[in-house]
Amino acid sequence: MRLKKLGFLFLKLKFMSIQTIKWTNNSARIIDQTKLPGKLEYITCRDVERMWWAIRRLEVRGAPAIGVAAAFGVLLGIKNFAGKDKKKFRKHFNKTCDYLATARPTAVNLFNMLDEMRAVVREHPEAEVIILKRLLFHRAMMIFEEDRRVCRTMGCCGAKLIRNGMRLLTVCNAGALATVDYGTAEGVMYAAKEAGKKFSVYACETRPLLQGARLTAWELMREKIDVTVICDNMAATLMKQGKVDIVFTGADRIASNGDTANKIGTYMLAVLAKHHNIPFYPVAPRSSFDLKIKSGKQIPIEERKPEEVTHFAGVPITPKGTKVFNPAFDVTPNELISGIVTEYGIIRRPLGENIRKMFKSYGEQLLIKSAERKA
Amino acid sequence: MRLKKLGFLFLKLKFMSIQTIKWTNNSARIIDQTKLPGKLEYITCRDVERMWWAIRRLEVRGAPAIGVAAAFGVLLGIKNFAGKDKKKFRKHFNKTCDYLATARPTAVNLFNMLDEMRAVVREHPEAEVIILKRLLFHRAMMIFEEDRRVCRTMGCCGAKLIRNGMRLLTVCNAGALATVDYGTAEGVMYAAKEAGKKFSVYACETRPLLQGARLTAWELMREKIDVTVICDNMAATLMKQGKVDIVFTGADRIASNGDTANKIGTYMLAVLAKHHNIPFYPVAPRSSFDLKIKSGKQIPIEERKPEEVTHFAGVPITPKGTKVFNPAFDVTPNELISGIVTEYGIIRRPLGENIRKMFKSYGEQLLIKSAERKA
Repeated sequence: MRLKKLGFLFLKLKFMSIQTIKWTNNSARIIDQTKLPGKLEYITCRDVERMWWAIRRLEVRGAPAIGVAAAFGVLLGIKNFAGKDKKKFRKHFNKTCDYLATARPTAVNLFNMLDEMRAVVREHPEAEVIILKRLLFHRAMMIFEEDRRVCRTMGCCGAKLIRNGMRLLTVCNAGALATVDYGTAEGVMYAAKEAGKKFSVYACETRPLLQGARLTAWELMREKIDVTVICDNMAATLMKQGKVDIVFTGADRIASNGDTANKIGTYMLAVLAKHHNIPFYPVAPRSSFDLKIKSGKQIPIEERKPEEVTHFAGVPITPKGTKVFNPAFDVTPNELISGIVTEYGIIRRPLGENIRKMFKSYGEQLLIKSAERKA
Repeated sequence: MRLKKLGFLFLKLKFMSIQTIKWTNNSARIIDQTKLPGKLEYITCRDVERMWWAIRRLEVRGAPAIGVAAAFGVLLGIKNFAGKDKKKFRKHFNKTCDYLATARPTAVNLFNMLDEMRAVVREHPEAEVIILKRLLFHRAMMIFEEDRRVCRTMGCCGAKLIRNGMRLLTVCNAGALATVDYGTAEGVMYAAKEAGKKFSVYACETRPLLQGARLTAWELMREKIDVTVICDNMAATLMKQGKVDIVFTGADRIASNGDTANKIGTYMLAVLAKHHNIPFYPVAPRSSFDLKIKSGKQIPIEERKPEEVTHFAGVPITPKGTKVFNPAFDVTPNELISGIVTEYGIIRRPLGENIRKMFKSYGEQLLIKSAERKA
């Protein structure tokens, strides 16, 4: 109840009304996204194991939010480390990072944010434990704040693509619930709305876990954006009827050549958009790029348990023993992508070339360096 | 219990183990397909109203099965007509047909089979009521028997397209449950299996009502065919991974030019199949062709209630008040179709030309005549 009231306060502060993840009282507080839209409940993660499970079970989800959750997970993992032994601390820290890296395989933000945390420890080889703890805390908070800032900037960059009267299509949830605040694909919509543009949105329900029907519809309705839910298999018909003007999606990992992994069903939308001559834009921050890999073929795709498909809310929908194929993501090849909306602007085609140029020209060497280091 | 035992008996008779619809004890007995795969329950339709609701509620579904249900519906509608007044009987008969025609709008089999029943009355202008009743009964039984025969023949025609080791993809249910016996798209699979071919099937779950996950998986598993269920949005990824060799679907209405209406999601599969260079074959009997219309644009598409999308088994999956777009069918334009499997053989491209040729050369003038009559 108390937390619901807090949620209401955020509205008044002109921030998003939804606070997906937050560091408070030496713990991470997250919205339990598996309970939405039925209930707005919060989970307090007091140790790293609870955070690992929250990521694994999709209580917290969305590539950028997972990145922040990983950084907070590190803080949870080291907070009770007693003693001043630097070597022991480093060992414990590395173990914590390695453990968190096993929570989910596809979204690169998880690994990139763990890399950022590791960089703190690497860059201060002589620092005392107490200093390292403080530095790590500040880096985690920076990651958290940067996500909020970056989402707003991406929103503004992408909003230029929206004209009055447009009908947008999106999949899964790439909104405030998938980030610290505001969102990626939905961030573009919020920015367009703030700029006074009129448009409507079709949200693919996104089987099997229905993030579109449950989360995107909930978010957009709260923000008074006109949203219509469709089953994933209806997108083609909508496009054929001329009811979709542009597609925005999130991204879980973008390879150097622009190939983009995102929620299962995204590749389908990209092929359909191409067939119907509709522009297709992933929206993703720098932290979703993985310049260590050349193409989407190198992105590991998480396959999740069959029960996500065979059951709904505990009720079986297939005969007992049904075989299931349940990949959580797919990869959209760069040739189907019109451009990628980032916090630096829109990366246009040819994507591979322009991704490298974009990061170089903005002096964002971290990922490129990291790529060179690991290569 | 008694009925379950009966079902078991059919297996021994070397027929399909599933008897979707049957005329027995002056009533129509149907499997309640909304209860599958959880329960195999039967409904006895004793009057035309109950049959109308069975069609509307999808207790009986699948274009050919709906056609037979309509013919049986006419029998139910006239069975209690008392008296010998021919004029009154004709009026009552026409009212019954008109009423049944309002049950669902897209599958043309409903209208074609009602037309066949009407033809009986039209062709015997002087017949007594008792004679007409008998003639109508025999025509309904012919429609029933023809559906079974036609499915077997279509199965044999289509089975030629299946080679050993192939991976098939299908959507919705076009099996024994969608016809009197054997099925259309699934009929092809049953025939291929009987011919000793080895293959496997991917079944799209088919949101919102999950006919693929519920019915196709159930049917194919009963017939010991290797089936894997996927969410509809996973088909594109399967195709990209080279795991689909051919697509078979049913059809609810095929226009003169070969444009084909079928369960929502079929058009999506056709576009994806084209993109991945995979052959795409609807399987449908003569009774699913509507030569009265030139193209798919003239096919009325049923839009069903939002609750099918917003709720599952009574549990809401979207926020209250969510807007929904819920078309039950889509239209696949002929240019995406490799060929249509019918009981006369496979109609190849150009479809429009070959559809007309096919029906003419086989002396099947009924539909063409009917088209000319109504034009």
